[in-house]
Parts: sequence; structure tokens; C-alpha cells
Amino acid sequence: MSVATNSKASTSTLPEQEPVLRVYNSLTRSKDVFKPRKPRHIDWYNCGPTVYDSSHMGHARNYLTQDIIRRILRDYFGYNVNFVMNITDIDDKIILRAREKYLLDETKSKNTSITPTLLNDTKLAFSKFLSGKLIKSLPSIPSGLSDSQDDLQNFLIIIEKDKSDPIFAEAARQKEEKYTLYLASLLRAHGAIKKAEALLNGSSQQDVVDLVDGTSDVLGPYYGETLGHTISDPIAVSRQLALYWEDQFFQDMSKLNILPPNTKPRVSEYVKEIVEFVEQIINNGFAYEAEGSVWFDVNKFDGAEGDGFRHDYAKLQPGSKGNKKLLDEGEGALTGSKGKKQSADFALWKAKSKPGEPAWPSPWGEGRPGWHIECSVMASAILGKGMDIHSGGVDLMFPHHDNELAQSEAYHGCEQWVNYFLHTGHLHIEGLKMSKSLKNFITIDEELSRNTARRLRLAFMLQTWNQKLDYSRGLIADTKAKEETFDNFFANVNARLSQAGPSADGLHQNGPAEEALTIDLFETQKDFHAALCDSFNTPNAIQSLLDLIAKTNIYISSKGRDANLNVVTNIAEWITRMLRMFGLGEGTPTKNGIGWGTAVVGGEEVNGQDISSQIEPWAKSISSFRDAVRKLAMDKSLPPTELSKQILALSDRFRDEEAIALGLQLDDGQGSDGGALFKIVDPQSLIAAREEKRKIAADKLAKKEANARAAEEKRIAQLEKGKISPKDMFKPPNTPQGIYTEWDDQGLPTKDAEGKEVSKSLLKKLAKEVKVQEKLHEAYLAWVKEQEGK
Amino acid sequence: MSVATNSKASTSTLPEQEPVLRVYNSLTRSKDVFKPRKPRHIDWYNCGPTVYDSSHMGHARNYLTQDIIRRILRDYFGYNVNFVMNITDIDDKIILRAREKYLLDETKSKNTSITPTLLNDTKLAFSKFLSGKLIKSLPSIPSGLSDSQDDLQNFLIIIEKDKSDPIFAEAARQKEEKYTLYLASLLRAHGAIKKAEALLNGSSQQDVVDLVDGTSDVLGPYYGETLGHTISDPIAVSRQLALYWEDQFFQDMSKLNILPPNTKPRVSEYVKEIVEFVEQIINNGFAYEAEGSVWFDVNKFDGAEGDGFRHDYAKLQPGSKGNKKLLDEGEGALTGSKGKKQSADFALWKAKSKPGEPAWPSPWGEGRPGWHIECSVMASAILGKGMDIHSGGVDLMFPHHDNELAQSEAYHGCEQWVNYFLHTGHLHIEGLKMSKSLKNFITIDEELSRNTARRLRLAFMLQTWNQKLDYSRGLIADTKAKEETFDNFFANVNARLSQAGPSADGLHQNGPAEEALTIDLFETQKDFHAALCDSFNTPNAIQSLLDLIAKTNIYISSKGRDANLNVVTNIAEWITRMLRMFGLGEGTPTKNGIGWGTAVVGGEEVNGQDISSQIEPWAKSISSFRDAVRKLAMDKSLPPTELSKQILALSDRFRDEEAIALGLQLDDGQGSDGGALFKIVDPQSLIAAREEKRKIAADKLAKKEANARAAEEKRIAQLEKGKISPKDMFKPPNTPQGIYTEWDDQGLPTKDAEGKEVSKSLLKKLAKEVKVQEKLHEAYLAWVKEQEGK
Repeated sequence: MSVATNSKASTSTLPEQEPVLRVYNSLTRSKDVFKPRKPRHIDWYNCGPTVYDSSHMGHARNYLTQDIIRRILRDYFGYNVNFVMNITDIDDKIILRAREKYLLDETKSKNTSITPTLLNDTKLAFSKFLSGKLIKSLPSIPSGLSDSQDDLQNFLIIIEKDKSDPIFAEAARQKEEKYTLYLASLLRAHGAIKKAEALLNGSSQQDVVDLVDGTSDVLGPYYGETLGHTISDPIAVSRQLALYWEDQFFQDMSKLNILPPNTKPRVSEYVKEIVEFVEQIINNGFAYEAEGSVWFDVNKFDGAEGDGFRHDYAKLQPGSKGNKKLLDEGEGALTGSKGKKQSADFALWKAKSKPGEPAWPSPWGEGRPGWHIECSVMASAILGKGMDIHSGGVDLMFPHHDNELAQSEAYHGCEQWVNYFLHTGHLHIEGLKMSKSLKNFITIDEELSRNTARRLRLAFMLQTWNQKLDYSRGLIADTKAKEETFDNFFANVNARLSQAGPSADGLHQNGPAEEALTIDLFETQKDFHAALCDSFNTPNAIQSLLDLIAKTNIYISSKGRDANLNVVTNIAEWITRMLRMFGLGEGTPTKNGIGWGTAVVGGEEVNGQDISSQIEPWAKSISSFRDAVRKLAMDKSLPPTELSKQILALSDRFRDEEAIALGLQLDDGQGSDGGALFKIVDPQSLIAAREEKRKIAADKLAKKEANARAAEEKRIAQLEKGKISPKDMFKPPNTPQGIYTEWDDQGLPTKDAEGKEVSKSLLKKLAKEVKVQEKLHEAYLAWVKEQEGK
Repeated sequence: MSVATNSKASTSTLPEQEPVLRVYNSLTRSKDVFKPRKPRHIDWYNCGPTVYDSSHMGHARNYLTQDIIRRILRDYFGYNVNFVMNITDIDDKIILRAREKYLLDETKSKNTSITPTLLNDTKLAFSKFLSGKLIKSLPSIPSGLSDSQDDLQNFLIIIEKDKSDPIFAEAARQKEEKYTLYLASLLRAHGAIKKAEALLNGSSQQDVVDLVDGTSDVLGPYYGETLGHTISDPIAVSRQLALYWEDQFFQDMSKLNILPPNTKPRVSEYVKEIVEFVEQIINNGFAYEAEGSVWFDVNKFDGAEGDGFRHDYAKLQPGSKGNKKLLDEGEGALTGSKGKKQSADFALWKAKSKPGEPAWPSPWGEGRPGWHIECSVMASAILGKGMDIHSGGVDLMFPHHDNELAQSEAYHGCEQWVNYFLHTGHLHIEGLKMSKSLKNFITIDEELSRNTARRLRLAFMLQTWNQKLDYSRGLIADTKAKEETFDNFFANVNARLSQAGPSADGLHQNGPAEEALTIDLFETQKDFHAALCDSFNTPNAIQSLLDLIAKTNIYISSKGRDANLNVVTNIAEWITRMLRMFGLGEGTPTKNGIGWGTAVVGGEEVNGQDISSQIEPWAKSISSFRDAVRKLAMDKSLPPTELSKQILALSDRFRDEEAIALGLQLDDGQGSDGGALFKIVDPQSLIAAREEKRKIAADKLAKKEANARAAEEKRIAQLEKGKISPKDMFKPPNTPQGIYTEWDDQGLPTKDAEGKEVSKSLLKKLAKEVKVQEKLHEAYLAWVKEQEGK
């Protein structure tokens, strides 16, 4: 006997080519065949958050995208995914924020009233801030700007005016972006100081709080600079702030239905490993110590001979090599460059420069880790010598990821530390970069009060993961429409299923329509697979599901009550599983396993509410409908036909008003027993559909009325015309004096103006006109008679 | 730059060998590498039920096993599985059962009392049954057994006694298995006949029902034989029975959490295709017609030259070639062998042999399909020229599946129709074959009242799918223990998670213990994968999960409160997903995604109510009430008052029935708007209140009726009394002879027995009596007049 898999039956058709998963790899700038190092297992390191502020939509784009890819790899392709994501809790931004918060809090609790010293501090802070001397990253003062409130206000007004002037608009927009927040801080502080000056002789602790909070943007950095050294346990101060924002971050992620990482290492827990790692890089000859800091020697590394290969710096973004602006941004606000050999070198270990900075012991004295080294160390500690996937936002490519690669390859002595580098695309809002100064900065919490986590996820899936995504009103509208298509489909299938008879009912044989639809399902499964294999092309994958729904809807509406629910169920069940696979499922799955669950608005679970409050509106509705019917039936004054008519009107009103408000769609005559098919759906979409229907009906009615008006006008015009007897048609005043001079008995002209006989051809034409007028005149006479009879 | 997938990092260790899925294939009797014909798509045909009786544990073993494999292929290996399962609704057993049921039902409804003919029929049936002449498959009578009840009873007692005698035990067990059901039928019939004989002179329709039900085992086959031809629409009769059991079957499957098939063709809907298929086999030279039947020519097929191959008969069970007993069983009780050339040949088409058998037209006259051909035709119609997987119980291997293969290969002209043939193993109960006569026959419903669907599934998974499974107390105890291990683990992890602080708490760094446990997880994932690749070795897969739990428990107890919940959560989350993948999940998943859900007892969902299933009954109720109102309103034939009356009746019925079932209490007229006051309450209490109300109403009515009856009796008694004219009251016979001797004109006595004057006081008393009687008599005369007037 032949081996089963080589059977004649199976070879009678050519074997189909199976698509394999390819992934866009930033390292090769192409879609590479995906092959993890170990069977069915993926080691993945993702750059996590630096925890010092609220998460915004840029974070959502990044972490949602990674979650979608992670779920596809895990739940569609069947990999065991080991997903590691760090938490950066040692960072210059955290240190600055934390010490400012600590010092401001201390000021608020220490002072029971506004003292001259405190007031003076705020004024000093204000002028330092205004002169741009306080914070490195702040813009220098716009020339000619004084510290009066009017001047600051005027500056903003001029910007606003310039924005609508075509010539100055672009410059104004740039100014706005640069100065808006800066000026807002100054204006706020100005107001608070003015208020405090007036209170100096009799202020409470609350006034202290108001002054400190009002001037916090200027007073915080000032105290940080001047009092930072007074903090006795700066590590604990940083840690407290970081822990708060770490918790907030994971709460936001959970609201977005993002799976938690398998491991979430914190930098602060890996300082010992970082020191050892840096020592090894020095030993390997790719870093040097200078004045208590350790620097990575980029020149030495780039092109250095390895074991059968050459090291290569800036693999991801070679064009940015030596870009000073990007490099400096990567080093942080508190970091100097003392002892650095080349400007391209970057810090592995930063010496403690001032008292009050958190610091850990090291062979080079007290200090703290550089930013890039954190990820190299934690990834190596947890995943070993290399990994399958490394991911992060596209803005981290250079210098962060390129430096990470260099350090790690310098440490491990390997050519390539990461096999696939995935960079998620940017997020824009209505075509613009999101920024606080553009006032289009949206936190995750804010967005979730407007749109559900599912809608966000689906919206992001409508763009490929590595492209820029424009989060716009248009995208939300498009996403809503697609969501509704899914919702309506599931509601329709569920309604038909639950209202069908026992499973034994109906034909089970597939006719040509069912066979065609089954093939549509199989083809869609192939397309869907091909889309996901094509570097997780989610827009194509979602579109293939929508196309299948369109085909299924056509099938259902063409078959009506005779639709084969088996075939439809196969489709709905598969679509359900695929949507849930993407993380688009919400709430509890229905008992029959069809549908992506109940949407959640504003992060609030609909399910958690108690049952009776859900059911109450239903009870109320059913009760009042019944009341109304009874009242009608008991009204003996109604003539019988009127009773029927009113009951029907009541039923219609119930369908179009109360039921719609409940989210109950009633399709009369579509139920299996000839009654209504009922569907439980989103009330909003029902209301929209009803209004659309009403608008169409109103338009139709308006058109009908316009037609009727036109017809009436025409009738009146013809009556008017019919007043003239056919015999008088060609006589004055109906025909101008002098055109004809003689007429026969019928009123037809016989002679023209010059007394000549009227030509036969003209006579023929005029006779025809007479015929027409005879009819019009008859109609007129009839109308006159009718009027007299009234 | 080198290509990512060939990096030095990944090649520093030897690549691991990835196991591939192998499946035990009955066709090759080995574990073959599994390779479906189309990428990621599996066409699968499974032999479904013949629907004529309750599903039992043998069915559960078969269909649960297939469901487990289907879920592994779909949800673990990621295939799109197209699962087709037929429903055999044309079959000799169905025909016999259906016609017996029909004829017995008819007998019960036709006879209002036991007639001598009916009694005689039961006796005739009894003796025919006893002599073994009635049903082919029954054993012949044990020698020396008479038809007396004592004799039958004794026979059973002797068997029971012999069973505990070491010498006779085995023979007794065999006798028991052979005769128990047979004798039980006889004894039951004997009792019913004896009872009926005593009732012959005054019996009711209920006595008829008792006699027919009591003798059904003997009377059914007798009537089937003798009256089968009287059935005018045998197709409809068979169909009705089949539909009932088909519905029961799918209900049982749903209780077992078995996924419904993607297509479930019925034989009765494929008769046309069957005829065409048989014609093609004849054309291909592998079948012949004889006396209206068509037979497959086994000799001609076996070894016949194909296109580059030789046909091969009985590939699955070559040793059974020509096994007459097995072949005859496959042909069915109603099938003869007229015209068959060789005994190995089998029926493709069975000529209608007797009137009253369901039959369809064909080129060979009226008849019905053979058993084996059904599956060949439906599988070909739905899946085309071949398939990836065919499955069924191991007892179907020969002749059913071997004949199916032969027919299909003869039709398609191919060497091999099926690539992988999967046969699920037998089920034994406590070491013995399950059979009704051994009294160890268990229906699915019965078993689900004792153990949950999950426990059953898990128990089955502890044996490989193609081995015999012994369903024993020991297995259940073992399963329970394993279930508890999972339960306790999930409860432990969930408790720790929900009682832990915010995600920011605790260390995130992995120490050596956490690293070791993480490696345990990865190793278990490999073992688990290897187990499933090894022909779905579920016992090993489950064991690997339990081993990982054991290791995790050791870790947790060694670390106590310092246990790293991240690592533990990774493990619990993966185990959850794998258990749910097998279909072992029940109820709603917990919010954190850990745990296999709440157990289900007796097929009833304990937990996990979702909103839509709560609301659905309300929606349904409101919709149908409205439907009913509309229908009434549209019924133009109703007189107007009738319309109102019916609407009110409908409203009352809704209040007292549907609303109560929903837990909706409607108090008419109590609402603030004068309508009903509605309350959502416990349906049970509403039902109790309604019944109480009904009881009170019934009692009141009964009392009223009793009063009315008493009043009527009194009225009749008084009329009776009033017959006597007041003038005759004191004369005989109204007053006994001799009490008075003389009377006045008014009939009042003047002299007593002794001729004395009647005393004045007595006379006064009697005059009063006369007054009363005058009224009674008047009433009587009025009544007489009234009767005459009628």
C-alpha cells in the first residue's frame, strides 16, 4: 500500500504553495522569512516605558501594536512567546521630576503662611526661568520680551494673529510650538505671584499651597537646582515617583486589553548586573573610564575585527552616525561630557555630578547607569546571548537601539545580537505630530472616555504596524462603520440561530449557493493567512473578513428564512475566533460562541452591573406596551376597524421608538414562525438607521408634494387656457387684431390681414389647434358646472 | 550585513530538531507524518450516528475523542478544519423501530377497551417471540423452557445462582448476557397479558395502553411483521422517529461541549446522489443489479487494474475479508440476499422487499440505499474526490469502512480515497463491554447527572484516543484527583494575585529559583508539543501540565509570600490556555485569564451568565406578545367585540404565564399611570403565588358548586313534599292509617284513632302545618305548570 501522504488522490491536483510568515526587519530593511532560534518559541525584548508621566496616545500606538503582533504570533501562529519588557525607573527625567516634587511638597508642608523668603524664591525662580538660564532644554528667551504679564500675553496674541496671516503663518506655528508651554508656565506663575504679594500680611497654609502649585513650573526647577543636594535619600525619592507612574502605566495597558509582559524587569533592580556588564565591555576594549564616567568608544567599535566578522555601528540608522542633536537627547538633561574622547561616544555609566542625585557604587566611584546600557543588560540577563525579536517605537532607532546593539555585540563578542528588529510607526493626530504645545496631546484615559479600547485597537489595525498612523476623525468614523458591520452581522446570525427551531429542523443539504459560500469561507481563510504572513498585514486581514461578511449578507438576504444556518454559523464562528485572536473580543463570549462580546465604553465594564438594572427597562417596556393594548381593547367607543388600526399603529410605534431605545430590532415577518425576527443590537446604530429611513421617507414625501403642486399648477393653467371657446380662438383679443380679417362658422380664419385667402396648410395647422382647444374648453365647462353644483 | 536568520548568535548552539505532527493511521497501521492536501486546511469526514435511540457512553467516547482531536488540530496546530458528519436517517433499525412505534400507537388510540382480538394478538406475539421465530437477531429458545411465568423466573434464578458457583460462573455469565433482555421482555409481557385477561369484561382505554406498553417488546415486532404493509407513508413514519433522535443526539453533544459539525448531511436528503453514484459504479464494472437490488462485486474489485495501481479490498482489516457474521450485521435485519453472486458482496441498493417499507425510485425499481454507500456519497458530494481525514469508531472498520473505501475507489477510479483513517478505541465499563443485558449500559444523560462534561472529557484524555478505555471507578477517582490539582493551583494563583498589591509592588528581578522555574515552563512547553505531535498523546500532555504544577507548587511554598507572581502567572496563564484549547474550559474565564472556569453539573451552567443570555428571554417575550396582538388586529374575520375579548384574554394569559416565567409580576391597575405595576421577582415565588391563587379560586368554585348542589337538592325535596295537597295531609297514606278517623272540609282531622275529638291545641299546631304545606303545594303546582309550558 502506498503511504497515505503520497496518495494518488492527493497528488491529482498540484500542491498549493503555502505562504510563510515574513516580518519587516529594520536590520535588513526588508520582509525576512521568520524563523525563531528554538522551535515554537520566541524570545522577545520590547523597550518599555520611562515612568514619570501619564501614558498618551503615542504609547497606545506602540504598545497596542506590539500586543497585536504578540497575539498573532501566539494565538494564530501558535508560538510560545516569551515577552520581556523593561521599566526604566532610573532616568534623568525621573530624577528631575521626583526631586522637584519632593522639594515642592516639603515647601508646602513646612510653611504655614507665605513668608517673604518664599515669595522671593518664586520671583527669583521666575526671572531665572524667563532668562532661559534654568533648564537646558528650554528655549532661550524671545528677544525683547520683558517679565510683565502684559508682555507675555501680547506675545501669545501676536502669535495667534500671525497664524492667520499667510505670510507669517508658518513662522507663527513654529513659535507657538516652541513657546506655548513655556509662556503658559510663566503666565501661571505670574498670576500666582501677584496674588501672593497681596496676601503677604495675612496668609494661610492654603495660600502657600496655591502659590507653590501656581509657580511649580518655575519654582520646581529652581529648587531642584539650588536645593537638590539637601535630599538625603535621592534613590527613594526617585523610586516613589517611578512606582506611582509604573502602576498607572499598567492600569492603562490593562484598560487597552494589552497582555501583561511575561517579565518586566526594572533598571533599579539590575544595577549590579549593569556594572558587571560595563566592566566586561571595558575588558573587551570597547569602553573607557574618564572622571568617574564610562564611555562607549564608538570609533574603536565600528569596523573592529570580530571572530570571523567585523563590528558595525549604527546598523539601524547608519545615516544618523554622529548626529549630535540626537545623541545629546539620548544622554539626558543631567549628563555632562567630561572626559569624553569623541562626540559620538555615549555614556555607559554616569558619574554622580552633584549631591542629591541618586547614585550606586561602582569601580569608578558613585554613579548611575546610562540609558542605553539598561536594555542591553536586562535583555541579556533574562534572554541570554541573543533574541529573536527586539521591538520599540521608530523614534528609538537612533541612538537608543543602535547604541544598545553596539554595547551588546561588544559585550557578547557576537556579530548580531538581535535577529528581527521591529519598529512601530509614529502616531499623528489629524495630520499633525502630537505635542502638548499643539494642544492635541491626548492621554490614554482621555481617549478611552470617548472611544472603547476595541475601537482604538481596530483603528490601529486599519494601518500596517510599521507605517505612520494618522489618528483622525475620518479614521474613527471608518472604524465605527466597520465595527457596526461586524456588530450587525453577529446580531443577525445570533438572532436567526436563537429563534430557529431545534437542530433537527430544516434541510441540511448544501445547494449551489451554500457550496459557493463555503468556498468563499475557505478562500477568505487563505487570504487572511496570506495577509498575516505578509508581515502581519492587519488592514488586509480585516478587509478579508469584511468582504466575507458582505458575501454572507447577500446570501442571507437572498435566501431569507430559508438561509442555511449551518454555513452561516461556520463563517460567523470563524470570524469570531479571528477577531478574538486579535484581542478585539470584549466581555463574555455568547453561549453559542458567536460574536466579539459587548463593547466597553470609558473603560467601564458593562457586564459588571447587576442583572436587574439591565433587565428593568425591558420589563418596563413590555409592561407598558401591554397596558396600551389593553386600554385600547377596553375602549368601547371605538368602531371596530378603528380598533385594529390603532393596535397596528401602536405596534409600529413600539417597533420604531421604545424597542429601538432598548436596542431591540424587530424585523416584521422575518421570524421563523412568520412573526418578527428580533435582534439585540446597539441602540445607537438602530437610531441612526431609523433616522436615515425617516429622512428618506420625508424626502420622498416632499418630492411627492412638489409633484402634486406642479400638477395642480398645470391643471389651473390649462383651465385658464380652456376658458376661450374654440370658435373665438383666432379672433381678437385671443389673436391680435388684424392678423385675420374673415372667419367661417367654426371660427376658423378664411382671410388674412391683406384680405388674401388663408393657405390650406395653415388652415390645417389651425384646425389641429382647434381640436386641442375644444378638449380644453370642454374640461373648462365641466369644471364650471362642477363649481356651480357645489 | 548577514541575514538575520543566519546570525552567529543563533548558530552558536546546534539547532534543535522540531517535532512534527504524526498521526496513527489505520491504513498504514503506523504513525504517519501529517500533511494535509491543502495548506492549513483539513477536510475531515466523520461517521455520525444512526438516529433511533438515546446516546450512550460509547457514543460519548467516540464523539468526545473526535472533538478533542479536532480542537487540537484547530486551536493548537492552527488548521482550518472542515468537519463533516453525516446523520444516518435511513436504516433498517430505524424502519423497524418507527413502524413498531407507529403501529403500537395506532393500536392504543383505536381501542377503547381490551378486545378479545387484541388480547389474542398479544398472546400470539408472545409465543412467536418465545419460539425465537419473530426476530432474526434474537437467541433461539433455551431448551426445555415453557411459556409459564414460573419457568421463566426460575431460569433467571438459576443463572443468578450459577454465577456465584466457580464451576458454572462463566457459562452463567454468558447465558445471562444472551438471555437477560430476552427474558425480561417475556416476563414483562407475561405479566401484562395476565392482568389483561382478568379485565376482559370491563376494561378502559388506559387498560389498553397498559397492555400494549407491557407487551411492546413482543407485540411491536409481531405487528411490524404482520401489519407493516398497512402503513401508507412509511418514509414520513421513519423520518419522524429519526428527527426526534437526531435532535436528542445534538442536545447530548452540546451538553458534552462538543463542537457542532460544519456540515451535517442527512442520508434522506442525498438519495438522488446515491442512485447516481451507484449507477457510476455499475458503469465502472464493479457492481451488478439483481432482482431490483444492486450488489458490489468484491471479487471483481479486489486486485483489479487501475490507472497505474491495483485496487485493494479490505485495506483496514484484511483478516476479516469474507467474515460472514460481520458482513451480515452490516447488511441490516430487513435485507435479504436474493441474487447476490458471492457471499462477500454487499448491497449498494436494496430493493423494496415488502409493502410498508420506505422506498425511493431508482433505475432498478423502488428501494433504499445500502448502509455503506451513504457515507461514500455524502463525503464525495461535500468534500470532492478525496479527503484528509476519515474517522469513526473502531467497530466500524470492517465491513463499513472497508466497504466505503472500496465503493469510493471504484467510483472515483483512484487508488486511495482517504489519506488518514482514524479509529477511536472501544469503551468498557469496569472492565466489561457495555451492554443493556449486563445492566452496565449508561446513557450520556445518566452519566452527566453524576459527573460533569469536563470530568468525562478529562477522563477520556487520560487514555490515548485509539486505545480501549476502561471507564471505571478508579479512572473517575484518578480524574477527580487531577481535576482538584488544577483547581487548587488556579485557586492558589488567583488568590495570590487578587490579594497582591498594585503591579508596581514587589521585586521584578528573576533570581535563580525564578530562572529555573522559567526554564521548567519552556521545557514543559516542548514536552507538551512533543506529546501532541506524537499522535495526540493527551495522557502525556496532561501529565506534563501536572508535573509543571507540581514544580510551581514547590516554588510557591518555598518562597511563600515572596514568590514572584510574574513567573507563576506566566505558568498559570499558559496552562489555562492549553486546558481551554482541549475544550476543558467551562463557564466564563476569569478577568485575569487564569483558570478553566466553574465546573458544570448535570449539563447546567452554574456560573458565567452573560447579559445577552439574560436579556434574550425578555426580548423574545416582548416580541411574541406584540406578534400575537398584531395577528389578532389583522384578523378581519373577527367580530369587533370578539377582537377586544381576545386581546384581553391574551393580555391575561401573558400576565399569568409568560411574564411569570420571566419573573415579571404585573399588578393590573396598580401602576402610577393606571396601568400595571411591574416587579422583577423570583419566578419560583411568582409561580407558587399563582398556583396558590388558582387553588383558592378552585376551592371557592368547589364550595359554590357544593352550595348550589345542596340548594338544588333542597328545592327538589321541597317540590317532592309539595306534591301533597294540604287537604290530604292528614289522610292516609300521608298520615298513617288509623291515626285520625274523621276530617273536616279543609282536610283537618276532627277525630283521633279512638274517635275522640282532636284537641284544640293539636288542631292549632296542625293548622300551622297546613299553612306551610299550602305554600309548598302552590310552589309545586307552579312548577308543574311551568313544566307543561315547556
